[in-house]
Amino acid sequence: MMGSAMTIPLRDNQHEVRLVGTPLDRDIIDHVQETGVHPKMQRQLPAGVQPIQVDDLEEALDGADLLISGVSSFGVDWFSETVLPLIPDGRLPVLAVTKGLAEGPEGAITPFPYLWRERLKGEKHVSFNAIGGPCTSYELADRRHSCVAFCGDEPAVLERLREMLETPYYHISVSTDVCGVEAAVGLKNAYALGVTLAVGMIEREEGVGCTPAYNPQAGLFGQSMREMGRLVPMFGGRPESVAYGVSDLYVTVFGGRTRRLGTLLGRGLAFAEAMGELEDVTLESVAIATAVANTLRKREATGEIRLADFPLLEHIDGILNQGMVMNIPWERFERREL
Amino acid sequence: MMGSAMTIPLRDNQHEVRLVGTPLDRDIIDHVQETGVHPKMQRQLPAGVQPIQVDDLEEALDGADLLISGVSSFGVDWFSETVLPLIPDGRLPVLAVTKGLAEGPEGAITPFPYLWRERLKGEKHVSFNAIGGPCTSYELADRRHSCVAFCGDEPAVLERLREMLETPYYHISVSTDVCGVEAAVGLKNAYALGVTLAVGMIEREEGVGCTPAYNPQAGLFGQSMREMGRLVPMFGGRPESVAYGVSDLYVTVFGGRTRRLGTLLGRGLAFAEAMGELEDVTLESVAIATAVANTLRKREATGEIRLADFPLLEHIDGILNQGMVMNIPWERFERREL
Repeated sequence: MMGSAMTIPLRDNQHEVRLVGTPLDRDIIDHVQETGVHPKMQRQLPAGVQPIQVDDLEEALDGADLLISGVSSFGVDWFSETVLPLIPDGRLPVLAVTKGLAEGPEGAITPFPYLWRERLKGEKHVSFNAIGGPCTSYELADRRHSCVAFCGDEPAVLERLREMLETPYYHISVSTDVCGVEAAVGLKNAYALGVTLAVGMIEREEGVGCTPAYNPQAGLFGQSMREMGRLVPMFGGRPESVAYGVSDLYVTVFGGRTRRLGTLLGRGLAFAEAMGELEDVTLESVAIATAVANTLRKREATGEIRLADFPLLEHIDGILNQGMVMNIPWERFERREL
Repeated sequence: MMGSAMTIPLRDNQHEVRLVGTPLDRDIIDHVQETGVHPKMQRQLPAGVQPIQVDDLEEALDGADLLISGVSSFGVDWFSETVLPLIPDGRLPVLAVTKGLAEGPEGAITPFPYLWRERLKGEKHVSFNAIGGPCTSYELADRRHSCVAFCGDEPAVLERLREMLETPYYHISVSTDVCGVEAAVGLKNAYALGVTLAVGMIEREEGVGCTPAYNPQAGLFGQSMREMGRLVPMFGGRPESVAYGVSDLYVTVFGGRTRRLGTLLGRGLAFAEAMGELEDVTLESVAIATAVANTLRKREATGEIRLADFPLLEHIDGILNQGMVMNIPWERFERREL
């Protein structure tokens, strides 16, 4: 959906746009070819967008100035295996909307731009860049003011991407802090589960449809910000990048699949029960929370950190992977700064 | 209202509670005496709370272990003149719910605990402490999980206050960073105006009652966090205290008078027009935004900082004090971290 939403600023800037689906998107591409409407996003795509099935990927790349990757974190390997070999050496930058973090060996966390670069094994040069920050696809498609960050290693490429994509509503910051931006916006998926536990917790007490309570959400939001603020530098990022993740957390709490799962878990459902109610959903939040908790456990084993110092993440992992149910450890969020 | 809401954890901990109104609260105290209900908060106060008119303030203080000040920032001088003289030397700690920042000379910003201490001129010792963090009075009165911070200079006093007030739903952190906690939670009032501009902006485009848009709010939220993150250390606070203000911003955006004003301003109303629609309202957000902008202008005059480096605050001040209307400077939020 986000890949498709990117066609709006692209077409507004008069670029020629070829929208290529993955093998999982055949029906979507068919539908766009027939109607011009993205069936999941339920938005008319701009005139001039060329919807293309994956079979014609190679031709679609011919003469391209920019490759925007719209795969989710579950499509990262497919992208590596299928798309990377087709990218010409040194000429076609990649800009990925994928949010996620790959679990490396020995407690390492690798952002996808670096994972893809590693997989090239130095055989050719590709500039890998990524988008972070608070921007939902629906609202970008509606041309809502959206503030994002493009991150990558090459300032000149970042500036060029910014020029290609900025519009009066799509506001682009640029940063060479790939580890920081990617860690921050990946972590927000995990912590959005944490904040939305409070939504379900209140519903359990008072029934679905009750007046929402914001004090509990805000307490979890503050704890999320503190834990993210310590994890981002631990994963090699700069402190100033945390704000991209915290503002992205703000927008993620308001809707979508992660909120639905967090709400169900907050009502006291076990993870398996909650997933049973959410049919046919793959959740990046679950993958990221698990990857980060695994990583922290590895670092704990070497004495580097204590997972218990991240009580909200530990609780999220407990629900997802240790059979626990919601029992927010409020008292462990308390601090003594004396 | 927050002062009255504090009676809930106090009574849950079996304290004897005397609820004394200011001269402006006579009708409220009358009402509580007759019905037990706080008429503005619309909540029954716990059994055993003794509502007392200000005339009997001196007797009410007799034998007290703790004085909780519930005045808003507009009552700070009244508190200085009327209550401070009655506090015995060295024996009765003060815990204030007041959020605000006093504009000092030469670009100084003084938190209220320090303002009150200065006004004592060393004639006696009073331990001044304050509460920050995301907690609305309504939800505290409903015993919602709420995470707050008590700040003050004396760790032993802070720990004692925590013991007196903590409950299974009222979660208390303690911090000696008075400047940081007070700056962070004061600033959130100013920035809540900024974030809620986006609510009115969308309403102007699509009509009141339209589907809310969160990308613009989140962009403003991220910018607020960045500006708060730079102002808190500038006002003498520690970086870890920023999270109390950012989580408080989260809860403030969802309701109350500041959101109503921000929404009206976001629709493009001039400040005077918006205030005309909000009858009989005194707004701490307006006072704080103005005080901080004035302070930054004084510091700009000495070459220390540039107000333009705080574009959201500058825009809020422009609307409140320079006759501007909403025209969010999105492109000035963009960053180049290269």
